[in-house]
Amino acid sequence: MEPIKAMQTKSAQEVRQMIRDGQLRGPTSGYADGYMQANLMILPAQYAADFKGFCDKNPKSCPLVAMGRPGDPSLPLAGDIDIRTDVARYRVYRQGVHIDTVDNLLSIWRDDLVIFALGCSFSFENAILNAGIEIRHITAKRNVPMYKTNLPTVQNGPFKGNMVVSMRAFSPSDLVQAILLSSRFPLAHGAPVHIGNPEEIGIKDIYQPDFGDVPVIQEGDILGFWACGVTPQMAIQQANVDIAITHEPGYMLVTDLPADANELSVA
Amino acid sequence: MEPIKAMQTKSAQEVRQMIRDGQLRGPTSGYADGYMQANLMILPAQYAADFKGFCDKNPKSCPLVAMGRPGDPSLPLAGDIDIRTDVARYRVYRQGVHIDTVDNLLSIWRDDLVIFALGCSFSFENAILNAGIEIRHITAKRNVPMYKTNLPTVQNGPFKGNMVVSMRAFSPSDLVQAILLSSRFPLAHGAPVHIGNPEEIGIKDIYQPDFGDVPVIQEGDILGFWACGVTPQMAIQQANVDIAITHEPGYMLVTDLPADANELSVA
Repeated sequence: MEPIKAMQTKSAQEVRQMIRDGQLRGPTSGYADGYMQANLMILPAQYAADFKGFCDKNPKSCPLVAMGRPGDPSLPLAGDIDIRTDVARYRVYRQGVHIDTVDNLLSIWRDDLVIFALGCSFSFENAILNAGIEIRHITAKRNVPMYKTNLPTVQNGPFKGNMVVSMRAFSPSDLVQAILLSSRFPLAHGAPVHIGNPEEIGIKDIYQPDFGDVPVIQEGDILGFWACGVTPQMAIQQANVDIAITHEPGYMLVTDLPADANELSVA
Repeated sequence: MEPIKAMQTKSAQEVRQMIRDGQLRGPTSGYADGYMQANLMILPAQYAADFKGFCDKNPKSCPLVAMGRPGDPSLPLAGDIDIRTDVARYRVYRQGVHIDTVDNLLSIWRDDLVIFALGCSFSFENAILNAGIEIRHITAKRNVPMYKTNLPTVQNGPFKGNMVVSMRAFSPSDLVQAILLSSRFPLAHGAPVHIGNPEEIGIKDIYQPDFGDVPVIQEGDILGFWACGVTPQMAIQQANVDIAITHEPGYMLVTDLPADANELSVA
């Protein structure tokens, strides 16, 4: 017998097919419940080793889930992935500047492009929600607020720059639980890089995020700041790469891996 | 070959012998490095089941490590323990009131007394220090500050009352690590019960602890509050027990278990 849940939500493969067919052109949060979603970075092969090293040195910002081969649009995260058509919206950077937003990569794909899939925060957010803890921006149907910080990444080759963080506000005891739960997902950015006063990491006004929506903060909340997958987009701006392609924030690559594939087991 | 460390520190058995012989009459912190130390509670057998249930319902305040049999002064935490002589200083409560402090229990031991050994924070403090993180009161050679709170325990039989917490102040990123490390020691009170604003849990003046020493707090610190082994001493005051015996805070029972015996393994 088919479980009832399978009739209510779509599989990762079905969601990728919808995107491929142009039926889904929006953010992927809430689609393919239970499957891991990933941040995307595509770079010319000449930068691939340096970017791989940048990920290795900055695992909280850039948790590397999978890496492709030059010119190969597939990824070992599902049998049918064609990265040129399977993300709903892409950002194209030339010389580190975001110059275009496109629906597919069919006309700009090159034989030297290498795909990187990086973990995203959805996995630990699911674990927090499953623990019965509210995530304020999700309740308010807003995008997570994201901020540039003064926390440096570790440079590797041309890739460098400061960390971008996402912020989630919790009551003190919920924040303790959120810290513990997120630490179990090292491929989803792991535990927070900072908690408390935003000014200490160079954020002047918490109500003016650099990306995403205005935060929801309740009386008595403590702010938690997690390393964010937008960090590598800052790094490619620094690196002056001739071409780089990322997903549009929120429009993720949906993989066939379970959302908790990257959860550390706790005895 | 004998490891050098064995020549520098004393074994748990040696420390208990020193206490038994009257050679050690001070706090046990720093003695028998690497061995688990425990909080002590001794009650008449008629209260044993209710107190056991109170521990089960409040595992963060009262993490039960071992329980004795009526009249038996031994404990399955080491072969040679005689609880009447193996703790350096004891508090005697009559009708819930602390009326005496004694060096041994030889003259007041009774055939109906039952021993409870409860985990203490030394295990997780060791793990934090081993991670290279400063614990401010240890650096300052002070006792940990402890506070009565408005956080209720879960009542069981006559045992009830509010939680006592210990406080450790850390920089934000160190507090995140301290939360993660302490969560791996559920028998040493586990993760904090509160972080941040002390007023939210009923602490009016952080610089006036109810027990222990005045805290050391640095600019930018966030306060972490852990459930504390003094909590059951509040519960016996509520219960109006005819006799109860505890250790003097800081003068712990040194066991033969390794300090990390209660650490959860993380894959």
